[in-house]
Amino acid sequence: MEKFEVHILGCGSALPTTRHFASSQVVNIREKLFMIDCGEGAQLQLRRSKLKFTRLNHIFISHLHGDHCFGLMGLISTFGLVGRTATLHIHCHADLERILTPQLEYFCKGMAYNVEFHLINPTKAEVVYEDRSVTVSSIPLRHRIPTCGFLFAEKPTPNHIIRDMIDFYKVPVFELNRIKNGEDYVLPDGTVIPNNRLTTPPAPPRSYAYCSDTIFHRPIIEQIKGVNLLFHEATFAQCDAQRAKETFHTTAMQAGEIARDADVKQLLIGHFSARYEDENILLQEARSVFPNTLLAKENLKVTL
Amino acid sequence: MEKFEVHILGCGSALPTTRHFASSQVVNIREKLFMIDCGEGAQLQLRRSKLKFTRLNHIFISHLHGDHCFGLMGLISTFGLVGRTATLHIHCHADLERILTPQLEYFCKGMAYNVEFHLINPTKAEVVYEDRSVTVSSIPLRHRIPTCGFLFAEKPTPNHIIRDMIDFYKVPVFELNRIKNGEDYVLPDGTVIPNNRLTTPPAPPRSYAYCSDTIFHRPIIEQIKGVNLLFHEATFAQCDAQRAKETFHTTAMQAGEIARDADVKQLLIGHFSARYEDENILLQEARSVFPNTLLAKENLKVTL
Repeated sequence: MEKFEVHILGCGSALPTTRHFASSQVVNIREKLFMIDCGEGAQLQLRRSKLKFTRLNHIFISHLHGDHCFGLMGLISTFGLVGRTATLHIHCHADLERILTPQLEYFCKGMAYNVEFHLINPTKAEVVYEDRSVTVSSIPLRHRIPTCGFLFAEKPTPNHIIRDMIDFYKVPVFELNRIKNGEDYVLPDGTVIPNNRLTTPPAPPRSYAYCSDTIFHRPIIEQIKGVNLLFHEATFAQCDAQRAKETFHTTAMQAGEIARDADVKQLLIGHFSARYEDENILLQEARSVFPNTLLAKENLKVTL
Repeated sequence: MEKFEVHILGCGSALPTTRHFASSQVVNIREKLFMIDCGEGAQLQLRRSKLKFTRLNHIFISHLHGDHCFGLMGLISTFGLVGRTATLHIHCHADLERILTPQLEYFCKGMAYNVEFHLINPTKAEVVYEDRSVTVSSIPLRHRIPTCGFLFAEKPTPNHIIRDMIDFYKVPVFELNRIKNGEDYVLPDGTVIPNNRLTTPPAPPRSYAYCSDTIFHRPIIEQIKGVNLLFHEATFAQCDAQRAKETFHTTAMQAGEIARDADVKQLLIGHFSARYEDENILLQEARSVFPNTLLAKENLKVTL
C-alpha cells in the first residue's frame, strides 16, 4: 500500500511545557510531505523526525495563534540556509501573509527560493490543494479567531490489472487504461469479458482529518464522516468543560463523541493543556466514548 | 558570595541540530535574570532551567539574525499567558522594534504587560543598562550585520565591617557608611583608627563578557580585559578558518587567543557550527592556546 502517515512534531497547547512542543504535524502521502501548523520548535522536531526537508512543499496553517505559527520564520530561514530552491507554499489566513511578509523581507533577503501564500477562507469547506493523488479541503471550525481544520483525502485509484487474465485474453496495451478505470473488454468475436474478471478493486482511498483548535462543534461531523484517522483537539478533561467552552476548546470526552458520531476508524487526541501532568485521564475519557483512541505524543507516527 | 551565574539555554548556530538550540543565555545576578539573545526554543529551555520567569525583566539582543531572536514572540506571548504584569525591557537594534511591533499588535492584543524597547547603537561601547549592583555595556563586534556583545559588570561593593572592632571602639551607627566606603575613624581623643583595622575588603567585583557573533576582532580585548568569564563564539575549527573569515565568524583557536590576550579568568566557547559532530575538536583547539576553556552546552550553568 502507498505510504500515508501522520507524524506528530508537537501536540501541546499555548503554554509550552517540558513535555510538549507547540502544534505541528507532517502528513506523508507517498513521500510528499505536508506540514499542518508550525509552532515554535517545529523545524527542530522536523529534523528529529528524519523526514526529508526537500519533500516538504506545502504548509497548512489552521489559525493565527502563536502556538500554531511561531515556528514558521525559523523553518523558512533554515530552508534557505540549506539551499532550498523549490517554492514553499503556505496555505493560510490572509493576515499571516501580511504579518510574515515584512519579516521575510528583513530576515530572508537573497534566499534562493520563494515563499508563496495561498489564502484560505476558513468559513468555507473547500478544496485548498489538489494533486494527482490527494485533495486537501478546509474544515470550518469554531474557535476564538477564524480557524479551519484540514481533510486530506486520497483520490480513488484505478483497479489493479490481473496480468494473467490480460495475457490470456490477449488484451492490447492501449486498452489497459480503460480496463483499469472499470470498463469491460470486448473480444474480437464480440464476447464481453466483465471487468471483474480482469481486475481486482483498488485499496479504498484513505483520509485524515485534522481538527484543532475548536470548541465542541458537531457541524464538522458530516464532513469528516468515516475518515480513517481523526486528529481532534482535546485540550481539557471533562472536569474543566466550562473552561473548554469559555476558551473555545474541546474536552477529551467531546472529542470521543465527535469520533463516534462521525464513525471514524481511529481517533488521535492532542493539543493538551499544560495543566494535566498525566494525560491518561484524557485518553480514558475519550476511550469511554470511542475506544479506538490514541494519545498524541511527540515523534509518534501513525500509519493509515 | 552573591549569586552570579550564566545559564546556557542554547549554544548552536544558524542551522538547528538535534544537539543544540539556537543562541540564548540567562545571566543571574543576585536573582535578577538577564537574558542574552533569544533564539527559537528559548522559552522552552527557560522553562527547563527552572529559572523564575518573573525575575526576568531585561533581554539583550546582540544582532538580528534569526537564530538570535526568533524565540522572542513565543517568549513574550507566554509571559502574557502566565499573567505577567511587569514591563519587559528589550535592549536591541532599532530594526527589531520595527519588525516586532506589528507582531505584538497582532498576537499580543490585550496582554496585561508592556514591552518596552531600548535602542542600542552597536557601534559604540556604552552603558546600556544600570542598576544598584550591575552595569551592562555594549561591546562593538564585527559581523555581517550590526552586532554587539554585552559586558555585565558588578559594581564595587563597600568594605565589610569587622563587628568586633566597631564594638571595641564604640563607633556610632551613623559613621558606619563612611567606614564601609573606606574612611578612617577618629576617636573622640583624636586617635585615628585606620580603615583596614575596622573593615575587610569586599570581594572584587566580577564581570562576564558575551561576544557573539563576530569575526576574530582584537579591538574587543581592551574592553573585556580581565573578566571572570568570557563567552566567545567559536563557530568553526581552524581547518575552516577561511570559512570563518568569509562568514564573519571566529575559530576556536582565535577565541582562545582573545581570551589569552585579554587575560580573562575563564573562557566558555559556543555558537558551534552544525558541521562538527564532536565539538571536542573545538575545545582542544581553544585549550591549546588558553587552557582554562569550557565547552558550552544546553543546560550548563557556570558560576562566577
